[in-house]
Amino acid sequence: MRKKHTSIGIAILGCGTVGGAAALALVKDKDLLERKTGLSLNLKYIVDKNFDNAVKLGLNRKLFESKLQTVLGDPAVSVVVELIGGTTVAKDVIEKALVAKKNVVTANKALLAHSGAALLSLARKNHVTLAFEASCGGGIPIIRALCDGMIANRIDALYGIVNGTCNYILTQMIGQGQSYQEALAGAQKAGLAEANPALDVSGTDSAHKLAILASLAFGEKINFDAIPVRGIDSLQSMDVEFGRQLGYVVKLLAMAVRLESGLYLCVHPVFISSGHPLAWIPGPFNAVSVYGHRTGHTMYYGRGAGGSPTASAIVSDIVSTALGTQKLLFRNLGIWGDRAKKAKQIPSGEIVSRFYLRFVVSDAAGVLAKIAAVLGRNGISIASVLQKEGVEGSGKQRGRVPVVITTHQAKEKNVRKALISLRTAKLALENPVCLHIVDEQEESF
Amino acid sequence: MRKKHTSIGIAILGCGTVGGAAALALVKDKDLLERKTGLSLNLKYIVDKNFDNAVKLGLNRKLFESKLQTVLGDPAVSVVVELIGGTTVAKDVIEKALVAKKNVVTANKALLAHSGAALLSLARKNHVTLAFEASCGGGIPIIRALCDGMIANRIDALYGIVNGTCNYILTQMIGQGQSYQEALAGAQKAGLAEANPALDVSGTDSAHKLAILASLAFGEKINFDAIPVRGIDSLQSMDVEFGRQLGYVVKLLAMAVRLESGLYLCVHPVFISSGHPLAWIPGPFNAVSVYGHRTGHTMYYGRGAGGSPTASAIVSDIVSTALGTQKLLFRNLGIWGDRAKKAKQIPSGEIVSRFYLRFVVSDAAGVLAKIAAVLGRNGISIASVLQKEGVEGSGKQRGRVPVVITTHQAKEKNVRKALISLRTAKLALENPVCLHIVDEQEESF
Repeated sequence: MRKKHTSIGIAILGCGTVGGAAALALVKDKDLLERKTGLSLNLKYIVDKNFDNAVKLGLNRKLFESKLQTVLGDPAVSVVVELIGGTTVAKDVIEKALVAKKNVVTANKALLAHSGAALLSLARKNHVTLAFEASCGGGIPIIRALCDGMIANRIDALYGIVNGTCNYILTQMIGQGQSYQEALAGAQKAGLAEANPALDVSGTDSAHKLAILASLAFGEKINFDAIPVRGIDSLQSMDVEFGRQLGYVVKLLAMAVRLESGLYLCVHPVFISSGHPLAWIPGPFNAVSVYGHRTGHTMYYGRGAGGSPTASAIVSDIVSTALGTQKLLFRNLGIWGDRAKKAKQIPSGEIVSRFYLRFVVSDAAGVLAKIAAVLGRNGISIASVLQKEGVEGSGKQRGRVPVVITTHQAKEKNVRKALISLRTAKLALENPVCLHIVDEQEESF
Repeated sequence: MRKKHTSIGIAILGCGTVGGAAALALVKDKDLLERKTGLSLNLKYIVDKNFDNAVKLGLNRKLFESKLQTVLGDPAVSVVVELIGGTTVAKDVIEKALVAKKNVVTANKALLAHSGAALLSLARKNHVTLAFEASCGGGIPIIRALCDGMIANRIDALYGIVNGTCNYILTQMIGQGQSYQEALAGAQKAGLAEANPALDVSGTDSAHKLAILASLAFGEKINFDAIPVRGIDSLQSMDVEFGRQLGYVVKLLAMAVRLESGLYLCVHPVFISSGHPLAWIPGPFNAVSVYGHRTGHTMYYGRGAGGSPTASAIVSDIVSTALGTQKLLFRNLGIWGDRAKKAKQIPSGEIVSRFYLRFVVSDAAGVLAKIAAVLGRNGISIASVLQKEGVEGSGKQRGRVPVVITTHQAKEKNVRKALISLRTAKLALENPVCLHIVDEQEESF
């Protein structure tokens, strides 16, 4: 016996790219969703100040509402979907919705990274839920993997390519030999980068997602401001090419690793072995590798942005909120940010890693030996050296050659110290380039 | 306020590789699981006839029980985990457990492929649940992706590499140039293939998993016996190598595609573009590509077999059964086999695909033209031809050369007809090799 379809009233706040796509999904897929979920999902309101996009998408004007209070006061609305973005208005709106005892679904990674625990706590106090599958990895059900499918695992590490704009730019730099500026311009032309791409290319957006994913993976409260973040905006084609020659692919990786002394979190452009699945991830796609103590390596792959994939995640959250599965998880699991203990986040200087170093040196005898000596004094041993014959430069470049060194495991603060010494001693004629090498190897079996 | 931990009584039936690993996971990870899920998961019984493995694993002898009735009669047991395997005893045991109103968790793909709908129906009648994440893809949470994360999508296609033994053998044939027999022997030595590998290499195991996954993906009842299945046991290294030269990788693919006229399901060794993520999947790993109408391509990757990864899936099912999320999904979703309508499965002859054909022909002028003419008469047009200069063979091979032809889209039954004509006319001196080319291209963006 199947129950009569339960009717669920939904309000979408913010009708931009994602809000519009979510509204369209609810309207166009109503029958499909009813057949698959047994729920009658009824979009009752679209709340915004400006309905240009909603009109363009052909959404029913009867849904348009400019007063939030009308929506929050309507007892027929049980799920409020926040798709305004940002950390000011959106925060205020979510708080009001929770206090009004509405379940909230959101895609707002910036807000969750900063205030996730507080909002979850507010939801709990008001006996409603806060769901956020759409905040990370677009259409990839990665939040669910951490809260459900992988729940039997102690998560040991999580590596994510979680910003499609950056991955597209890097793919173009790697595959087409483009410079960062050329690749960025191409991404903007293809609609894959904002006119102001700062949030993406600086790594900040990836760090937002990392904070959310790591919190659930490890069941600990993450201090967003303590995550070291570097973007791809200073990356040079020369290093991409040297990486390739050494068997590495450069990726902007959001990393979270459980070490004995605590959690190591960072967002960096890194070199990853070309045999690792993450090295393969093309264009604007996203992927998250999760290492569980029972499963070993698992990976989740898909489109990390765009209205339609993100709408898939939003609707799946509306469904689990309406079915009540979200409530059961929220009530029982211990991994939620408002319940978790504070993570002990390891300062990046303490991290041990392999490194790729590129120096510009004068094309003279004995320079390499001197560099090696400085590295050695700082406890850094060399794994490989790549020095091409000097190419006759002109002007400022004359007599200068690049030297690439990969190191064995070394402490990051020792590397930094060595680099400063080398610069001070004018052995390095420019600021050295320093990238982590993430030794996730080809799968062993 | 967190609830006091709910205590859940669990019985594991069958203590082989997977049963032993699941028992160990419950015992060893008890604190971790309690912290993460808020549940106290108590393994109360291990039921088997022979406890050698259980003893070897150091499991507590107090858990050992040989009478199923004792377990089913114990009101403290709420979840029964069937890990006996096979379709006879296991079926009987699951039915008894369901009738005794025990929730069942199983990894039994053969049984579910044949009797899934009937067992789900029996569970429903008894107001309990049947969960089977561990039946497909080992530690990969793919059942959950279909029932939860991807629920907002109309699934258009599902392509799975779901047998690690076959994928390991193929990886060795591709990477090491081994013959099928050499690679099989290596897999057996590495513990990655059974002494009797028939169920794996014949494609039957993949077909079991395909039936389960396709049923949930499309929300339709699958007739297992109508799935065309071919294994990898007749695959020749020569074809693997020709594939490579043409830009393809050979994979044993479990395919389910929604076409206008119905569902096309099959398990075949196929050529897939080397740019597709599935082409990359190494060794014993599994991966399932799911194409949703909202998400586009998503992929789920991990270890498809082995005690520990499978235990992760089993424990996640125990958790969702105990939390009640499984019950909510089982009660509400329309995609379960016992509720779904019968799928219209398209006979393989009606399928349109590209094909790889290899003929052994006599090294004489005009043969290729004659083959082309026969193909043309059957509506098959040629996309590419690969014919190397004749190598001087000896004995039977003298004067015989291989010719490789890839076709444009053609109907499978026309191809079969043409191949019979070519064999009858002795233009093909041996039975031609015919493989599907799956044109999943590199990701577009």
